Amino acid sequence: MTHIPTTDDLSLGRRAMALLDLLAQHSDEPTRLTRLYLSAAHRRAAEATLAFMKDAGLDAHIDPLGTVVGRLEGANPEAPALLIGSHIDTVVDAGRYDGTLGVVLGIVVIEALRQLRIAPSCPIEIVAFGDEENARFPTNLSTSQAFSGRYDPAWLDGKDQDGVTLRKALAAFGGDPARIDAIKRDRARYRGYLEVHIEQGPRLEATGNPVGIVSAITGISRARMAVTGEAGHAGTVPMNIRRDALAAAAEMMVAIERTGATRLDTVATVGAAQVHPGAINVIPARVDFTLDARAPNDAVRHAMMADMIAECESVAQRRGVALSLEPFMDSPATPMDPGLIGIFERTFAALGLDPMRVASGAGHDAVAMAALCPSAMLFVRCKGGISHNPAESITVEDADVAARVLVEVVKTIVA
Amino acid sequence: MTHIPTTDDLSLGRRAMALLDLLAQHSDEPTRLTRLYLSAAHRRAAEATLAFMKDAGLDAHIDPLGTVVGRLEGANPEAPALLIGSHIDTVVDAGRYDGTLGVVLGIVVIEALRQLRIAPSCPIEIVAFGDEENARFPTNLSTSQAFSGRYDPAWLDGKDQDGVTLRKALAAFGGDPARIDAIKRDRARYRGYLEVHIEQGPRLEATGNPVGIVSAITGISRARMAVTGEAGHAGTVPMNIRRDALAAAAEMMVAIERTGATRLDTVATVGAAQVHPGAINVIPARVDFTLDARAPNDAVRHAMMADMIAECESVAQRRGVALSLEPFMDSPATPMDPGLIGIFERTFAALGLDPMRVASGAGHDAVAMAALCPSAMLFVRCKGGISHNPAESITVEDADVAARVLVEVVKTIVA
Repeated sequence: MTHIPTTDDLSLGRRAMALLDLLAQHSDEPTRLTRLYLSAAHRRAAEATLAFMKDAGLDAHIDPLGTVVGRLEGANPEAPALLIGSHIDTVVDAGRYDGTLGVVLGIVVIEALRQLRIAPSCPIEIVAFGDEENARFPTNLSTSQAFSGRYDPAWLDGKDQDGVTLRKALAAFGGDPARIDAIKRDRARYRGYLEVHIEQGPRLEATGNPVGIVSAITGISRARMAVTGEAGHAGTVPMNIRRDALAAAAEMMVAIERTGATRLDTVATVGAAQVHPGAINVIPARVDFTLDARAPNDAVRHAMMADMIAECESVAQRRGVALSLEPFMDSPATPMDPGLIGIFERTFAALGLDPMRVASGAGHDAVAMAALCPSAMLFVRCKGGISHNPAESITVEDADVAARVLVEVVKTIVA
Repeated sequence: MTHIPTTDDLSLGRRAMALLDLLAQHSDEPTRLTRLYLSAAHRRAAEATLAFMKDAGLDAHIDPLGTVVGRLEGANPEAPALLIGSHIDTVVDAGRYDGTLGVVLGIVVIEALRQLRIAPSCPIEIVAFGDEENARFPTNLSTSQAFSGRYDPAWLDGKDQDGVTLRKALAAFGGDPARIDAIKRDRARYRGYLEVHIEQGPRLEATGNPVGIVSAITGISRARMAVTGEAGHAGTVPMNIRRDALAAAAEMMVAIERTGATRLDTVATVGAAQVHPGAINVIPARVDFTLDARAPNDAVRHAMMADMIAECESVAQRRGVALSLEPFMDSPATPMDPGLIGIFERTFAALGLDPMRVASGAGHDAVAMAALCPSAMLFVRCKGGISHNPAESITVEDADVAARVLVEVVKTIVA
């Protein structure tokens, strides 16, 4: 257990929790927190965030894609700016910390700097992105990708499950597709991006650390697998001549799990499977299943995928079933910036914190922002590692530690 | 390869195939063969069967549950009668041989005896049951169970997928629930039941035998299994602390398949599985799956089930997941009558056929009839072992062999 420093009154943590509570009131559903990109609740949350930013003295606006941006000018307005933020959209039936914590802590830092009468040498921009959860449209990090000029106009034609296009939803929100290009930032004018986020995993809790320094955001490989055997009567076809698609798929799933656990910091998951025809007295003819494999290092991830595919193909060959494999995602890992990691490490040391490094198994806006400028993330311990769930929980003490780390890091950067 | 005797003109086989073609015209669906119990197509097929029986000189009627019964009196009308038959209901998208073959061959035998001018010493009843496939109502072999007085009136309240009760369907068919008791046969007045059926499996084809003698109809154990682990983010929860319900279920499925193949003539099948929540990026929280295990010997089946359950419980314990197991069927095996098996064996020898014994992995009306009188079954080779499928196929040569065996066996019994 690390010594955990807190301010006497936990003032920064309490302020963050209060803002989180206020934002949690904006939901598209009455009995649970759901705030999908460009929904009415997203609009209300964006306006609330805008108000918090203005109250903190920022020059704030909502950009053409719905991102809330608040800017504090620096002593030297021409110096490259520091970005701080995360996202305010949520999954369906969400917790209140995922994303929102990083936005709120950006605002708290501005308030703290003002209280400490620190005038930054360079501008600071607080950003609240809107499309991180991939919960409504097929897009992935579209609002933060626009910052580095990587917004693909074809994304505007993507539809939600009700058939509403992103273009139409954006118009209803009050956005403006014609002005997306204006979001693009000049990379020469930005020095870095900092994002605080709940860990969404159990490692900080397991080691007794309130916060951790993200080493890299993992790369992700995804594939759809289909095993085709032969249907048959569950009573009349002898075991030794069966070509049971589910028994074969089950053996593959066991091999995938074993292979996913062989290397350091890798994970592999079969999250969905459908069995056809799916009757108690029929030998399964086909099983479709998904594969999601992640590693903070791309070479490791590719080696893991190759091993898993080879294992599955070997199972298929031995059992006389067909395996079709359709890879559809190969998203590279994003290492966090070594210079910013160094600042976090020195800050941790100064505050008596264990500078634990953790790889992020989930994607974040920092993946998109790393294409614009040096980026780094701070993870905050969350109860049981639970996220994407109303049971998502952090303590005010940990929020306070995260806020104090962030204030010190920002002071170092903007000094 | 056995020497296969056939008549020069395959007359019995051709006649059987012609009757099968006629009955295959009666379907509830225009483009495929579907003839569910008490449907309009079942009524038409029952009336066609009734006509075939009357044409063959039988005193025929449709009984209160829809079974078609045709009786040929014997020289001694008081002598115990011989029953011959099977069923004329089908699964959805069926083949034309499953069940119907045994009914048609009963009629062909009567025609052959008449042609041979053989007057049986005892009565012969040809029966065409209507509820063997368990494809419409929750009932199982209800029409043949009525013959031994085991019809449960509660079955009349069972509903099909449209909510129609068996009682209502029976009234629409023209049956009469008030007269079910009259179907019950006096066991002193029946000497045996013979059923010819396609094998629905590949063993006769694999050994080159056109027909085989059924040793026993397997017992069946069924259970619903539920594995409960813990959902989690597919990227952030390390492999070593996961409680992945699907990985656990997959290991159980592999163990079930292995255990099902350990003993002679046993089979075990996981035919259906549902994964919850079933998203590519979420570690599965729960998997529900079915287990169907069969053996021609009940002690063997119970030992196999105990082994499989122990293996699954061991997997669950090691992985820290919960396993709930709900057994819902324990149907005993039905050995075929040794005396009738002996008559089949002597007939096979006389015709130069290999008297191969096969256990039936599927249930049949003979299971219900064995509660009334000594019962035996003859299996006919079917292409690729395929059944419950429009690709179900037998040859006219094999139908002819089966008809000749049945004629000789009946001659021996009714001499």
